[in-house]
Amino acid sequence: MLLIVFLFALIFSSSSHAADFCVAKLKGAGSPAGYSCRMPSRVTVDDFVFTGLGVAGNTTNIINAAVTPAFVQQFPGVNGLGLSIARLDLAPAGVIPMHTHPGGSELLYVVEGKITAGFISSSANVVYVKTLGKGDVMVFPRGLLHFQVNAGENNAVGVVSFSDPDPGLQITDFAFFANDLSSELLEKTTFLDDAQVKKLKKVLGGTG
Amino acid sequence: MLLIVFLFALIFSSSSHAADFCVAKLKGAGSPAGYSCRMPSRVTVDDFVFTGLGVAGNTTNIINAAVTPAFVQQFPGVNGLGLSIARLDLAPAGVIPMHTHPGGSELLYVVEGKITAGFISSSANVVYVKTLGKGDVMVFPRGLLHFQVNAGENNAVGVVSFSDPDPGLQITDFAFFANDLSSELLEKTTFLDDAQVKKLKKVLGGTG
Amino acid sequence: MLLIVFLFALIFSSSSHAADFCVAKLKGAGSPAGYSCRMPSRVTVDDFVFTGLGVAGNTTNIINAAVTPAFVQQFPGVNGLGLSIARLDLAPAGVIPMHTHPGGSELLYVVEGKITAGFISSSANVVYVKTLGKGDVMVFPRGLLHFQVNAGENNAVGVVSFSDPDPGLQITDFAFFANDLSSELLEKTTFLDDAQVKKLKKVLGGTG
Amino acid sequence: MLLIVFLFALIFSSSSHAADFCVAKLKGAGSPAGYSCRMPSRVTVDDFVFTGLGVAGNTTNIINAAVTPAFVQQFPGVNGLGLSIARLDLAPAGVIPMHTHPGGSELLYVVEGKITAGFISSSANVVYVKTLGKGDVMVFPRGLLHFQVNAGENNAVGVVSFSDPDPGLQITDFAFFANDLSSELLEKTTFLDDAQVKKLKKVLGGTG
Amino acid sequence: MLLIVFLFALIFSSSSHAADFCVAKLKGAGSPAGYSCRMPSRVTVDDFVFTGLGVAGNTTNIINAAVTPAFVQQFPGVNGLGLSIARLDLAPAGVIPMHTHPGGSELLYVVEGKITAGFISSSANVVYVKTLGKGDVMVFPRGLLHFQVNAGENNAVGVVSFSDPDPGLQITDFAFFANDLSSELLEKTTFLDDAQVKKLKKVLGGTG
Amino acid sequence: MLLIVFLFALIFSSSSHAADFCVAKLKGAGSPAGYSCRMPSRVTVDDFVFTGLGVAGNTTNIINAAVTPAFVQQFPGVNGLGLSIARLDLAPAGVIPMHTHPGGSELLYVVEGKITAGFISSSANVVYVKTLGKGDVMVFPRGLLHFQVNAGENNAVGVVSFSDPDPGLQITDFAFFANDLSSELLEKTTFLDDAQVKKLKKVLGGTG
Repeated sequence: MLLIVFLFALIFSSSSHAADFCVAKLKGAGSPAGYSCRMPSRVTVDDFVFTGLGVAGNTTNIINAAVTPAFVQQFPGVNGLGLSIARLDLAPAGVIPMHTHPGGSELLYVVEGKITAGFISSSANVVYVKTLGKGDVMVFPRGLLHFQVNAGENNAVGVVSFSDPDPGLQITDFAFFANDLSSELLEKTTFLDDAQVKKLKKVLGGTG
Repeated sequence: MLLIVFLFALIFSSSSHAADFCVAKLKGAGSPAGYSCRMPSRVTVDDFVFTGLGVAGNTTNIINAAVTPAFVQQFPGVNGLGLSIARLDLAPAGVIPMHTHPGGSELLYVVEGKITAGFISSSANVVYVKTLGKGDVMVFPRGLLHFQVNAGENNAVGVVSFSDPDPGLQITDFAFFANDLSSELLEKTTFLDDAQVKKLKKVLGGTG
Repeated sequence: MLLIVFLFALIFSSSSHAADFCVAKLKGAGSPAGYSCRMPSRVTVDDFVFTGLGVAGNTTNIINAAVTPAFVQQFPGVNGLGLSIARLDLAPAGVIPMHTHPGGSELLYVVEGKITAGFISSSANVVYVKTLGKGDVMVFPRGLLHFQVNAGENNAVGVVSFSDPDPGLQITDFAFFANDLSSELLEKTTFLDDAQVKKLKKVLGGTG
Repeated sequence: MLLIVFLFALIFSSSSHAADFCVAKLKGAGSPAGYSCRMPSRVTVDDFVFTGLGVAGNTTNIINAAVTPAFVQQFPGVNGLGLSIARLDLAPAGVIPMHTHPGGSELLYVVEGKITAGFISSSANVVYVKTLGKGDVMVFPRGLLHFQVNAGENNAVGVVSFSDPDPGLQITDFAFFANDLSSELLEKTTFLDDAQVKKLKKVLGGTG
Repeated sequence: MLLIVFLFALIFSSSSHAADFCVAKLKGAGSPAGYSCRMPSRVTVDDFVFTGLGVAGNTTNIINAAVTPAFVQQFPGVNGLGLSIARLDLAPAGVIPMHTHPGGSELLYVVEGKITAGFISSSANVVYVKTLGKGDVMVFPRGLLHFQVNAGENNAVGVVSFSDPDPGLQITDFAFFANDLSSELLEKTTFLDDAQVKKLKKVLGGTG
Repeated sequence: MLLIVFLFALIFSSSSHAADFCVAKLKGAGSPAGYSCRMPSRVTVDDFVFTGLGVAGNTTNIINAAVTPAFVQQFPGVNGLGLSIARLDLAPAGVIPMHTHPGGSELLYVVEGKITAGFISSSANVVYVKTLGKGDVMVFPRGLLHFQVNAGENNAVGVVSFSDPDPGLQITDFAFFANDLSSELLEKTTFLDDAQVKKLKKVLGGTG
């Protein structure tokens, strides 16, 4: 028996992170596969638990909505495990604007309320849109433009999971209007009118 | 313009499934990467929506619990997209017995009630266990033994997402006692007493 | 010797597609990993050669540009090999509008002329833009919004390779304005003015 | 010629680890893809050779068996190469108890003696069991419960290879009974009787 | 209980191949990820067992050696499981000539005798060579040129496992001299003398 | 609005490398998935641009050819993005000798001149060879022996892209003759005559 125990100790002394999990050292440099692993001896159950999604995000903002993420930066325990999660809060008239996740697919589960959600295919620009009720699920394939809006008169809450610990989030309006991309280039590459561009740059804090 | 439109039509006429999605033909043979794709022209938004998780599973059974899956077999739209989802219903005293998912990691989100959940590492057999409240999240790394039990006096509901469209589910008790594995082999390889094995084979319908 | 030859014949009689290549049967259903393989015995060198990129695309269109793809749908030999290629033609004032490739990263090589290219990060919406000359290379990370415009007075030609045989192409303007997505939903999720939306729907053939 | 040689030197000066191999720095933190690479200049042929599997493991223990691993922790040369290996020694009546490898599939090659091996599917809990002789091979799919027992009267020796440098090993009995998992939780989630649990906790050093 | 059993039946009715295994339909077309799956109901334990490696290959040939493969074409059970295996027989003076496996890394385990094995790095063309005894293991990184020769006076036997079900095998001499590649092209691209080329084409059955 | 901006800052403060890109720290140790990431704050557009391919490589050498790589070692921006690129210059009679890329597939685009290119399958040693003109493309599957020779009377230029940031390059002649592999072993494993081996070792600087 002792020998066996000894052998197992030997086999697994330093292997946990690879065989089982790899809790992220967020300060580390990271690699294409994710963050470096914390030593298993330093890992506790709390690294695998995230408690931030129980409270509603603050929706007093222009989109009447909030996204509360539990991606690897907030939830180091998912590093290397191929998924992550976030909470959506949509006040009445709340909107999660058109966006993509460059790194993964998304599954929306409606916890409360009514949400109209949709995505657009890259091939034929087909729109797939549906109004979902409590308990309904919709999948958004990786990298495609999609959106969610509150379809009811009360608050709506959704839980979204992703096929990557760090799926990324690119909101088209922020990408176009919340930076210093020159209006000239932006107008050339989006066919948007100068007035429209200037107006939204102002709202979203863009320059140029 | 016409040429462009024409070009895009040409480029993407048959490529949707690969670039965007691959809704499963469940009757097809399947491959190591998943099921064959339905032709994009035959795909509608309803292939990306699953409505079965809004209703509670029936928990009047020996575990006082139910699992309602939206894996690729129930939800063909997730084929090839790297994730799937299921609903857990735990009546008071409800238990999801010790099990593993050979094909993926799991994220539990507590929708309602209190759930005590845990997993066991393969390396040092360390137990990571925690009681979770509404809105809490816990991650269970791929392939490791884990469990969930109702920790309150009321019903508990969880939503679990997986890093694979078909994660599999191996419940240790079912693997040991719900088939024709000979009691002799089973006792030799589990150290369980003959009486214990016979008793559980009876409960779970095993033979041999 | 004979035996050896015989053994090799035996070993590899039917394995080519897996070990070496998997030329696509485009009519087949496809799977998440790509198209089914043509039988090696039916494969010739011409399946690995694409001759369509030698001629300029027709740029007499509203963007003064053309994309000529050699993705798996045009070039079945790249199926399963992790890359594909396309030719860009940019007449003076030519523009490849803002777009993403949901399925892969892109490398641009400037064959002729001057091209201003850029992409926008999802994290901080940082713009990475540069004017490239003949022989310069720029990489665009998977799934991020990017664009290319002719920066000179003559034609510009680029060759772009992708990290996937079927990277997909989602042009933001086509996704927004070239389909039946309702103006109301579009305006809600993009903050664009009704006049702007109507105007571009007209140009790009959208309805709703 | 010199130029060529110079170019190659330039090209590959620091690339070996990525293009060819990545011998593990075991003291490093590791990442989801494995351990950091030792500098190629510090690598010798001995990093690619493991000499520990020539000697029989000590089988004087309760299972009359021993596992001698050459996983990445013992054999740093396999880091990032997608496989590893181990030696099984089974004295008469020797048993490798029910276990899983969360990280990979396994191939057993019988070097000597007779071994009865089996695995259980997750889907229908089907048992696949067979008695193997010298030179026979059996494959155990990733993550599924499996076992090996000596089926003869003499020593049996097996070599097992894995589809991962660090497949992990979770022995059900050790996961259940060799730690501080509370008997109450264990009994609830396994349906095992209290007496059985207490008995095996005693044998395997568990508490709680 | 019944409900549970019913639910599991529902969940897993058609999912085995994906969650657990995918035994190859060798007559099927195959895909980049491997062959199509046989229906689980048609699968038996014999699909996971290969019995051909117990007998020595016939080494009465010019290399005094034989390779007996259990790749996916011979052993359909490994399809999609990320590994395969083969037996090497080396009579005295036996040689496995310089070769690569385009699809995977290799682990050699010496069952009997003495084998000198080596590989050459792509970066700096460094030779890693060692003489191995019974029970020794050596790893050969994916795609690199390597060889094995009998280093003793008796037969040597090795078992080699691969990180892919269909690793492929490209023997340099067969690639150069056992086909119709024109001597002119071959000499230009290998710097070999015409006499040498003609001589080996004759031995290995090449033309042109 | 402020809250939203704040949230995004929070979400993405340290996530860029994972979600978007991972510019290589070349001095870092590296991992099986590539080099460590530079901090996004230290990254500029120039990390995504490579300007070295605009000038012809020096072809005054024994092969009358030159390879100018933009692999991850020269072009850190491609780290983790699944592709890389290089320029081929072939003077009249120029030759890129028989070689493999252990880590990836290759796409050749002919920018100028005429190139005869070919590869050899591992299965049946079938030769796939073709003479390509300006604008033609040919794909070379991962790990297979291939070559390119100038088929015209003028300079030929090609651009080759790869399905990996660090595909590696193993030139058979360099692997055989440009190191200290003993002539005896080399002759045994290649069937080449001693005179031929000695001659080429002399040309390519080999010893032993």
